[in-house]
Order: sequence, then structure tokens, then C-alpha cells
Amino acid sequence: MQVKIDFNTGIIEGCRVTIRRLSDMAEFYSDQVSVNNMLKKNRDPCIYEIYEYSNPADEGNLNFGTTIIYPGKVGSEFYMTKGHYHQKNAGEVYQGLRGNGILLLQNRKGEFRSIEMGKGSLVYIPPEWAHRSVNIGDELFIYYFVYPSNSGHDYETIRRTGFMKLVVEKNSKPCIIDNIKYTPSES
Amino acid sequence: MQVKIDFNTGIIEGCRVTIRRLSDMAEFYSDQVSVNNMLKKNRDPCIYEIYEYSNPADEGNLNFGTTIIYPGKVGSEFYMTKGHYHQKNAGEVYQGLRGNGILLLQNRKGEFRSIEMGKGSLVYIPPEWAHRSVNIGDELFIYYFVYPSNSGHDYETIRRTGFMKLVVEKNSKPCIIDNIKYTPSES
Repeated sequence: MQVKIDFNTGIIEGCRVTIRRLSDMAEFYSDQVSVNNMLKKNRDPCIYEIYEYSNPADEGNLNFGTTIIYPGKVGSEFYMTKGHYHQKNAGEVYQGLRGNGILLLQNRKGEFRSIEMGKGSLVYIPPEWAHRSVNIGDELFIYYFVYPSNSGHDYETIRRTGFMKLVVEKNSKPCIIDNIKYTPSES
Repeated sequence: MQVKIDFNTGIIEGCRVTIRRLSDMAEFYSDQVSVNNMLKKNRDPCIYEIYEYSNPADEGNLNFGTTIIYPGKVGSEFYMTKGHYHQKNAGEVYQGLRGNGILLLQNRKGEFRSIEMGKGSLVYIPPEWAHRSVNIGDELFIYYFVYPSNSGHDYETIRRTGFMKLVVEKNSKPCIIDNIKYTPSES
């Protein structure tokens, strides 16, 4: 099969699209007062979109697509993806297409890494590392991804524990700070 | 880890580079008279280059990189990659970055497919399909690839059997013709 990707917009024609609005991921943000204020004002913005081409979850198959994160903040925290572990040990490759972001990585041993991404960044996310992407710019942050079709997604651990660090705006600059609400995973 | 890809040149900084010259793949071309004439004239051109970032061959890991095929012909046959099966059932994703090519696909059941590729093409190569890329243009044909690290490469089957079809120039146009030397795999 062949589909077309637009390197500027990140749109892949004919793909399944998933839209994540603030209300879909309210719990993932640190500042619940800001979340509730935004939602009360009938402002349920699109935080990110995923264009994905999935194959059957057999060993050796690959899924691929793009993630498009809008610019914006919830309180001082930049728009970001939910973040997840893969259920099965599986890596993932990101290729930056547009904008500026920070990729947060953490594992169950309590290790943490952050990687700045821009157009042309190629990042390998090894198995066993949870990953979340954050848009730290004023425009769309877009990247292309490929991962094994049988990986599975564990969003629940991150929903429960949070990420070890938050990416917030401080003095008009993105800043990585400790997440005081972080509760290490039991496993 | 993070590396940088140049979308225009296909070069990935800090990556292992493999260069395939005509003498490295003489047997893969149909017209052996032209191969020998080129080599006798001390013309051993670079046919293609691979920039690849490899991870340990554990299940769940991924390799990624770029293939850069130069423009040119051996006799009437366009410059191309050797072509291979994966030793283990594993898919691969191609993303066209520059130029124009044709991807040839065949499997051990005797099925054949061809797919034209250009900038922005995303092609999924399912497990069990041998794949060869051909540059049908006047400039570099470049694509980015991702595949499982434990795939392995079987070039030997293709060296022995050839591909079912050749891509040759006829009346100044690329044309897919039967390969009369093709000998189906025994397996």
C-alpha cells in the first residue's frame, strides 16, 4: 500500500485520525484549576491529532503516522500528549517535521531523560521507556513515528503516576521542573 | 539518542555509511556485457549509499536510516538496490524524501507488485515480501526507512533467482519488463 504524507502539515491522506481535546486528557495536566476554568468557559481546545496507519498486531508488522501538537498552555504547562508506555517491549522512532518540542522519557527504574526536537531530529525511544511529547513553540509541533504493531499502549500508568517532570513556561521560556504530584509506579 | 537528518541530501550525521559500487553488485544486473564494459573502463560508480542507525537485534528494537540511489543505468537497466528478503518475518516502512523511484516487491508465492515513489510517499512493505528500489529519475532518489532490528537480510536468494521484473529505459521512458533470467526460488 502507498499513502502520501504532507511534510508541512503532517497530514497523511486516507488515514485514521484521532483528536485529543482537553476534556479527553484533563487528568494529565498538573493545574486542575486551569483545566476546569478552560472547560467551564466552553473552551475545549484540540490539544493534538494523530494520523495513523495501523497494521494487524502480528509480530514483525509496523504502524506509522504523525502526531500534530497545537501550540498553547494549560495554566503554565505546555500542550502535550498523554504519554504512555508500550505494553510489550517495543521501541519507537520519531522524526521531527516541523516546530519545536521536548520529548520526555522515563522508565520504571526511575530514570528520566529529556530531548529537544525540531525539524530533522531523529530520536530512538528504546523499549521500556514511557514517552510524552510537548510543544514548546508558537506553531504546530509535528513529528512522524514508526513502532511495532504489537506494542500496545499503556496510558493508565501515566494517568495514575504522572510524569516525573513538567514542561512549563517561566519568564517566557520553557522550563523543565519537578512534578511534585509524581507518584512512582508500584511495579 | 538523537541524530539529525538532512531531508534534502538524506545524510544522517554520525551514522554508519555503506557504499555499494557496481563491483559490489555486478551479478544483480541483467546485462553482464555492460557491467563488464563499465568495469573494464575503470568505471566503478557508486550505485547507492545507506546511512543507517542500528540497534541490538532484540525483539522490539528498530533500525532506521536513509537510502540514496544515484541516477544512472547499467546498459538499459536503471540503478537500483540489490534487493532482499528479511530473514525473519518483518515489515518495513519507506518514506520518500526526494526524486523518483519504483519499488519492486515479490514474494515466494510468485506474486509481484510495483509502486511508484516520490517525495512524500509512505509505503508499507509487509513481511514476506522481497523489496528492491530503483531510481528512474535524473537526480538522486532518496528515502527514509524503519524496520525491526532483528529482521536480518537475505540478499542471497535474490542474487540467485533475480527479480521477476526489470526496470529499463525504453523510448526514453522507464518500463517494467519481464526478467527472462528469473528462476523461481525453490523454497
